[in-house]
Formats: sequence, structure tokens, C-alpha cells
Amino acid sequence: MSLTLYLGTKNYSSWSLRPWLAAKHAGIHFKEVIIDFDQPDTTSRIYAISPSGKVPVLVDVDVKIWDSLAICEYLAEIAPHLWPSDQYSRAIARSISAEMHSGFVALRNEMPMNVRAKQRALVLSDAAQHDLVRIDQIWTDLRQQYQLQGPWLFGKFTIADAMFAPVVIRLNAYAVNLTLSMRAYMETFYNDSAFLEWIKDAEQDTLIVPRLECGQV
Amino acid sequence: MSLTLYLGTKNYSSWSLRPWLAAKHAGIHFKEVIIDFDQPDTTSRIYAISPSGKVPVLVDVDVKIWDSLAICEYLAEIAPHLWPSDQYSRAIARSISAEMHSGFVALRNEMPMNVRAKQRALVLSDAAQHDLVRIDQIWTDLRQQYQLQGPWLFGKFTIADAMFAPVVIRLNAYAVNLTLSMRAYMETFYNDSAFLEWIKDAEQDTLIVPRLECGQV
Repeated sequence: MSLTLYLGTKNYSSWSLRPWLAAKHAGIHFKEVIIDFDQPDTTSRIYAISPSGKVPVLVDVDVKIWDSLAICEYLAEIAPHLWPSDQYSRAIARSISAEMHSGFVALRNEMPMNVRAKQRALVLSDAAQHDLVRIDQIWTDLRQQYQLQGPWLFGKFTIADAMFAPVVIRLNAYAVNLTLSMRAYMETFYNDSAFLEWIKDAEQDTLIVPRLECGQV
Repeated sequence: MSLTLYLGTKNYSSWSLRPWLAAKHAGIHFKEVIIDFDQPDTTSRIYAISPSGKVPVLVDVDVKIWDSLAICEYLAEIAPHLWPSDQYSRAIARSISAEMHSGFVALRNEMPMNVRAKQRALVLSDAAQHDLVRIDQIWTDLRQQYQLQGPWLFGKFTIADAMFAPVVIRLNAYAVNLTLSMRAYMETFYNDSAFLEWIKDAEQDTLIVPRLECGQV
């Protein structure tokens, strides 16, 4: 096994953060290569390693595995504790991970992940507000149910937390109303050394991608 | 284990077809309940069983598992041959399944699944055309690679085939250009008894949902 994870720009690439964070939490060693967004050679660099034309891509020796969720499942075969050990909890963890993977489109479009943005003003559509309510419900219900086992969604860190990590950054980037419960879960991330390593890398990067800059400073 | 699968209208519900077909191929016994789209009680019936407000939902005794991909993973824990047995093939199968799960948005929007529609005329956007090219590439490359093991994407039927089953119905519903390779894979479905059972159910249903009727007859 020799793993290389190809990522987009850390300040903006929400899909890249997910498998990166899962791999870090699993203690899986990997080399990382960043392909910055919107550069003259971005498309050719991505197509050179990605069958779908998107990042992230995990390359294991010469096998290419793409899409954040498929990469996370691959990591979970190496480190099974990346999913809850109980069959039913694991099924719920996969349900919310898949819900994040294909859903919350309004929130994802209107609040692009931007690590360096802080409390920017914006007006959300009803659909995005609805997304926030649903996310609060997921986080609150699960953390209440598993609170005795730890501060993550299923007590201990799982892929489900990795899937929602970019939402935490979004909620920090834009001035939206947060429940106490949401704040408490966000705190869990801002006390997590792997998450903070990504934040630090993104903060130190200077590349600005105008199409991904939203909200009023 | 006592499984009930809640589905949308069979003529239209592409997400419902996926886990249904996977369960049938795995020989997993389940009860099915259809919640027809766009009826006065549709929303209340869906929310009564679905945390995300969407179908399909699989209920195992009293545990609710939602989202087509998470349900398929749950079925694969019961019937592991629903994924390829080789680690790398399985990783690729999950990659294309996840790519279908979150992508091909133009194709999904412009060519809604409609079993009863046949070769309707429509004009596709460049984005949807691009989706078709990518789908042809996925199907052709994999079926060439695994052809000695059978006619499905990885030789034997896997969840990856279930994920693409609604695309096969779309390609039959609308008059779009198909490669010989695409036609050959579609044939595999139209010779599959589980797939044909779904088609028959959908053909016999009379419910018309106007917002999902596209293309010129």
C-alpha cells in the first residue's frame, strides 16, 4: 500500500477535506498533492489522475479511487473503526453521509466552503435555511444519543463527521443563526488537531479564487 | 431481520429502483410499500418514515435507513457479493456508484426516469451530452475489462449496475444517440428478470405526474 491523495485548494475544496480528515483520524499515512483550482493547468492536471475530472482522487500504487465517499469507504476497509462498529449505527452513519453527499445543494451553492472567510454577511434562500434546520436536527439528535461515548456524531470520530466537516467551516465563514447545539458540535472540530492542521494550511495559503468568494466582508 | 422498502412511484422513482434491484439480485426478501409522488398525502406519508423527507427508505424492524447508496451498502453487509470481491474492483465500483450518486445532474434533470416513455424527442444541453459521453466511457471500459466474467460492469451483477439502471431506462425513454457499446449494456438489463419485473410494474401503473413528463411523444 502506497497512498497519494490528490486534493483541491485547501481553502475551498470541501470534497477534498472529507477523505483527508478521515485518513488523518485513522492514522493512515499518505502523501498529499494539491492541484490548485482555476489555474491554467488545473484541468490537465486533474484529468491526468482523475477519471471523473474531479478531485479528490486517492491513488494506491496504480489504482485510482475517486469521489470523496468512495475514498472514505476504501479507507474504512483499511481502518474499520472509521465507521461505527454497531451495524445499525453504521447504517445511520452511512445514511447521513449519503444524504450529505447528494443533498444540501442550496447550502453548498450559497455558502461555498472558504476557510479564510469569517462571519461574512449573506442572505440565504428558503431552501438553504431548510438545509440548516435539517443539519441541526441530524447533529443534535445523534450527539444526544451518543453523548456518553464522546463529542462526535456517533461518540467517536467516524466518516460521518468527516462528511460534515466542511459545513462547520461554512457556518464559521458566514454570519448565519446558529443553535447552541450547532455551536457545541463546531467546538468539537475546533479542538481537533487534524482539523486544525487543515485550517492552518488553508489560512496560510494566499490563492484567491474569485468565483468561490461569496458574502459581504 | 424484517425488511420493508418504501419506494416512490415505480414509473418515475430512479432512486427507488436502485436498492430494489440490488435487494432482488441478492435474493434478500423484503416487503415493499409504494408512496406515490405528488398526491395530497405524499409528504405526510414520506415524513412518517423518512428522516430526510425522501424515498427510498429501508426499515429493518424499527431502524430506518435512508438514501439509495446507504441502503445498498446495508444490503451488501447482508450479501457481500453485491460488491466485487476483489478490493480494487470494489473500490472502482464504489467510485462510479458515488459518481452517479452525486453527479450527472444535467442528465438527471433533463431526462427524468420514465419507464412508460419511449424514444421521446428532446434537445439536450452540452452538459447533458457530456454526461452521456462520460457514462459511455465508464460502461465501455469496465465491460471490456471484465467481459470474461459476465455482461455486467464487473462481470457479475453488483451495486454499480443498480446505480446505473435508471440511466438505462432514460436512454430508452428519449431519442438520444447511443453507441453500440451502450446498447449492448442496455440489452443486459432488458434480459434481466428482476429489472423486467420493475418495468412491468411501472408499465401497468397508470399514475401520471406532469412535472416528470418531458420530451415530445
